[in-house]
Amino acid sequence: MKILYFRKDNQLYPGIATEEGVLDIDKYLAEQNTTWRPQNPMTLDDVAELETLAANGLNDPQYRLPEEGLTIAPCVPRPPKIICIGLNYRQHAIESGMAIPTVPVAFTKYSNTLTDFQSDVPLGSVGVEFDYEVELAVVIGKKGKHVQKEEALDYVLGYCVANDLSCRDLQFMSSQWLMGKSLDAFLPLGKYLVTADEVGDPQTLQLTCTLNGEQRQNSNTADMVFTVAEIIEFLSKHMTLEPGDLILTGTPQGVIMGHKEKVWLKPGDVVNVAIDKLGYTENKMA
Amino acid sequence: MKILYFRKDNQLYPGIATEEGVLDIDKYLAEQNTTWRPQNPMTLDDVAELETLAANGLNDPQYRLPEEGLTIAPCVPRPPKIICIGLNYRQHAIESGMAIPTVPVAFTKYSNTLTDFQSDVPLGSVGVEFDYEVELAVVIGKKGKHVQKEEALDYVLGYCVANDLSCRDLQFMSSQWLMGKSLDAFLPLGKYLVTADEVGDPQTLQLTCTLNGEQRQNSNTADMVFTVAEIIEFLSKHMTLEPGDLILTGTPQGVIMGHKEKVWLKPGDVVNVAIDKLGYTENKMA
Repeated sequence: MKILYFRKDNQLYPGIATEEGVLDIDKYLAEQNTTWRPQNPMTLDDVAELETLAANGLNDPQYRLPEEGLTIAPCVPRPPKIICIGLNYRQHAIESGMAIPTVPVAFTKYSNTLTDFQSDVPLGSVGVEFDYEVELAVVIGKKGKHVQKEEALDYVLGYCVANDLSCRDLQFMSSQWLMGKSLDAFLPLGKYLVTADEVGDPQTLQLTCTLNGEQRQNSNTADMVFTVAEIIEFLSKHMTLEPGDLILTGTPQGVIMGHKEKVWLKPGDVVNVAIDKLGYTENKMA
Repeated sequence: MKILYFRKDNQLYPGIATEEGVLDIDKYLAEQNTTWRPQNPMTLDDVAELETLAANGLNDPQYRLPEEGLTIAPCVPRPPKIICIGLNYRQHAIESGMAIPTVPVAFTKYSNTLTDFQSDVPLGSVGVEFDYEVELAVVIGKKGKHVQKEEALDYVLGYCVANDLSCRDLQFMSSQWLMGKSLDAFLPLGKYLVTADEVGDPQTLQLTCTLNGEQRQNSNTADMVFTVAEIIEFLSKHMTLEPGDLILTGTPQGVIMGHKEKVWLKPGDVVNVAIDKLGYTENKMA
């Protein structure tokens, strides 16, 4: 199932993307006179219920909206946490001049980085060294603490593609990377949260990034240092994970920081990040 | 005004602490047949409205609850961001063996660190080097971007005392401090969010920490490297600040990490952190 959120009258509504259009969950439920609504953030139980509805009345043509006409919000609009794992592809650690990590390196973006699908990204004037990072984003679907890696994928609601936009001069102005990672609108997400059953093994996905049509990153999640399951085991040893937690699993080689001649992103540049089975997002820097 | 939140029937309710008891805001408003409620997180507008109500009908004895009988939740229950400023007192930077920062060093705790007032803190088994840190916490009351330091305090809703509990071996297992800062329940907050008008100048507050009754930290916010106003200016240059954002402004010298013989916190230890005008929280390690 492909989940998205769209805006109407200053409110957010969940939808299910199908080839015939977006199923308007709220409209259907309102007509059924049921008080049940999927929570925001959604849980695995919500997705199971929506699967049933989408196989029945919710799939009726009267509840379908043309996707083109919608203002599409971030597919995970209210993550309790946004956890980023750094240096999680070997070649990227090497190009960054840093050691391949022996434990996951975790840092943060805040929710001010979320932005509507394909909206322009204002680079602003406080930094200079703007860079892209295509990443597989994992969305948690149920509460978990001390999750073992063998069961870890049972906690995953789904996946989306993310661009972990970074400003390197701000990232390295102190020992902690936060300031270069959490500028407003610096986390474009793909249109859909694709549920885990449609994705299967998260370690076999090709991921690419192009800048103005030129390919810059092209790798596979098979090359991660720590797998999605290992990351969930690691994080949940230290903190309770919750539905809606968004985990960015690191970027492969090919970022601007790794180039000999560094031509940073500038207004007008268009960055496209894409992952197998998950789709893409293309954003213009402004 | 002193704001707190208490639990009843699995819900959170806001209250105003007075010498005669806690004013039950929801009960009063429900009886007024008004649909207005203070938002959670609260804004400066909400506080202004509550000031008016507390000077009138809300102060009637029928709306007062005895504070002793309440289960008191974190005084900032839903912060969109928890932003921590590291090494922000000169003597603490020196005792940590780190340079006095030339820009604020920002890092994160997530909301899984919030815990009910004075509840026990489970140390768990993934780390060993547990440490305390008394800190002045600032709560933002209105949205702001590119706020100048001269106006910065106009964005402050209020203040509370915080204990930025840390696990040093986890904090330093990678370059990024997050994992040692965001264990569950590792951010005890003082009982009240004290509104800015009652606190006045945030740079004149004595702050102390005791371990099992023995004084360990005793300093003054006058010794901060970056003032509250400077921190707000700095952060809002990079990211939009929102109502409820919780900014921890760093800890003074006296942490265990700074001792020659390091005896880390262990189950049974009781840590009390207190700040002038804001009160205290005392938590047992478990």
